[in-house]
Amino acid sequence: MASDFTLEELQSATRNHGMPLEGLAYATTPPGMHYVLTHFDIPRVDPGTWRLEVDGRVARSLCLSLEDLRARPRVTQPVTLECAGNGRARLEPRPHSQPWLDEAVGTGEWTGTPLGPLLQQAGLLDDAKEVLFSGLDRGEQGEIVQWYQRALSAADSLRPEVLLADEMNGAPLPPQHGFPLRLIVPGWYGMAQVKWLHRITVLDEPFWGYQQNVFYRIAQDDDDPGVQLTRIYPRALMVPPGMPVFETRERLLSPGPLTLHGRAWSGWGAIARVDVSTDAGEHWHQSELEPPSAPHAWQAWSWTWEAEEGRHELLCRATDAAGNVQPLWPRWNLKGVANNAVQRLAVRVRHEPEA
Amino acid sequence: MASDFTLEELQSATRNHGMPLEGLAYATTPPGMHYVLTHFDIPRVDPGTWRLEVDGRVARSLCLSLEDLRARPRVTQPVTLECAGNGRARLEPRPHSQPWLDEAVGTGEWTGTPLGPLLQQAGLLDDAKEVLFSGLDRGEQGEIVQWYQRALSAADSLRPEVLLADEMNGAPLPPQHGFPLRLIVPGWYGMAQVKWLHRITVLDEPFWGYQQNVFYRIAQDDDDPGVQLTRIYPRALMVPPGMPVFETRERLLSPGPLTLHGRAWSGWGAIARVDVSTDAGEHWHQSELEPPSAPHAWQAWSWTWEAEEGRHELLCRATDAAGNVQPLWPRWNLKGVANNAVQRLAVRVRHEPEA
Repeated sequence: MASDFTLEELQSATRNHGMPLEGLAYATTPPGMHYVLTHFDIPRVDPGTWRLEVDGRVARSLCLSLEDLRARPRVTQPVTLECAGNGRARLEPRPHSQPWLDEAVGTGEWTGTPLGPLLQQAGLLDDAKEVLFSGLDRGEQGEIVQWYQRALSAADSLRPEVLLADEMNGAPLPPQHGFPLRLIVPGWYGMAQVKWLHRITVLDEPFWGYQQNVFYRIAQDDDDPGVQLTRIYPRALMVPPGMPVFETRERLLSPGPLTLHGRAWSGWGAIARVDVSTDAGEHWHQSELEPPSAPHAWQAWSWTWEAEEGRHELLCRATDAAGNVQPLWPRWNLKGVANNAVQRLAVRVRHEPEA
Repeated sequence: MASDFTLEELQSATRNHGMPLEGLAYATTPPGMHYVLTHFDIPRVDPGTWRLEVDGRVARSLCLSLEDLRARPRVTQPVTLECAGNGRARLEPRPHSQPWLDEAVGTGEWTGTPLGPLLQQAGLLDDAKEVLFSGLDRGEQGEIVQWYQRALSAADSLRPEVLLADEMNGAPLPPQHGFPLRLIVPGWYGMAQVKWLHRITVLDEPFWGYQQNVFYRIAQDDDDPGVQLTRIYPRALMVPPGMPVFETRERLLSPGPLTLHGRAWSGWGAIARVDVSTDAGEHWHQSELEPPSAPHAWQAWSWTWEAEEGRHELLCRATDAAGNVQPLWPRWNLKGVANNAVQRLAVRVRHEPEA
């Protein structure tokens, strides 16, 4: 694996952060441990003057304050979010962007009002095709100065699970998670979860935008139209067992029985099985899998290993109800997205010296 | 500057995270934006069974629950914390550890009970020399398996500003900031702010420990006894003006008057002045500096620049009341600590195209 990360990649990595994998122990990720990826700066928004505008191909434009939104029907749902770039740093040659390894994930309890009834109140006109969501974050990417913008089809926007969330884990959104309002599209990669949302525009034609048509797609080269990213491909991750070596993050464990555990998720359906290997993939063992606690939240799995002295490589691999299976090795693409290759954890089992 | 960051450095950088520098706009840093550095794993502690033990060279050993601690006199104080490794990634050759650039800082409102009265209640014996603080985080570093441990002299432990904090910004400590209890030693680098604190041991001899005697010291080579790190050397940072380029973090601004602003701090006294340069250090301008809002919190500064089209390098430089001045360029040491060289920000001023 390449090890020539650039200063530009490091600048991203010290701003953005993953969920330390011991965070997999929590069904609901504490906010400061949840992954964060911001394309531009984190805006500081005055909630008193902030408004949500709804316009475009609607019968009635709306302009809503935070109080207006909070007076609407409220729903709370746990949703697992994952950055589409998770795993990018393991590709060779490496697409240069935020260099995630495995940790760009988290599960929040998101509270807000469903989007669909609000769009129905505005009244989608017959020619409504897509709904565009605009954030207050702005900058240059791909040589284009832009506000962060993403669109959904009108049909996807009206799905009952799509939320306008103003709370995370029972508190107002932290600034880095989109205060005062973000879109939550359960099951989709993070690029759809527009933060610092301030405008919803109904369009009568497909949106063309950098974050929609250029960056977040699976393509082999610039001429390949590729496939726009939507839902999250399955992934299982393991709580790193034992204790870490600071410098290498290798794990040190004592011999004997040890319950390996973690979580798994997919945007294409429930997880059907998680398999574990302790010999770099030669043999696989089906783990015990908990049923989903909610339609769009990760599921816990566990499997007990009889750890023997020596060095081992631990793997875990999820299969979802739609039949998607994690690949054993990364599949390259131009932007380094949707690399859901299995996690590989180096562990050293030994009789542990006293500290 | 080197750009061959290793996988091991990246593994640290995706776990730990700095404060995105737009966070300098907040006098009190939101918890998820405050820098985090954990040597080992983030322990998950059951507050019901957790106890703080006070033992060693004391007249009466103590064993305190979280409720016991919360029933004691409580103090809230804003304290600026900075990692001793801030700036490490700018050294050449680069010491390999967490590769911070400028962002390992944050200011929390820490609430807890002063340590001194608790030590007096336990009763330091006449031969008490140092006080050792042990966290629940454990792993291997420098080929030594260890619990995270740091000591203070008995005199420093009794300073009135030293706190046992169980709240950050009015809420229980987040897991990554040391839940349920951490030591707060205002003015000192982060290595002294022991998280997941569970034992305080009074010693009749100097503590020898990896984090005390090996890692956190300014030394030129392994044979140099060097100087143990204590207080924070002065630093000023600027809110990056304008908007960012995603890939490079270069800043784009429009021509015209622009107020540059930021914060500055030192563990050796109040900040006496912050100077700003917009021409890579050829000319300096004294900024307007706000008085300290609290003895151990950063101070706001600002200066208005008439930005002209072109590329510029912006610098800011703090001087503290003790006469310490930030160096213009990094000063190398073996562990890459206490590099408080001035921030250098690349900006491009141009008439901004419409997005």
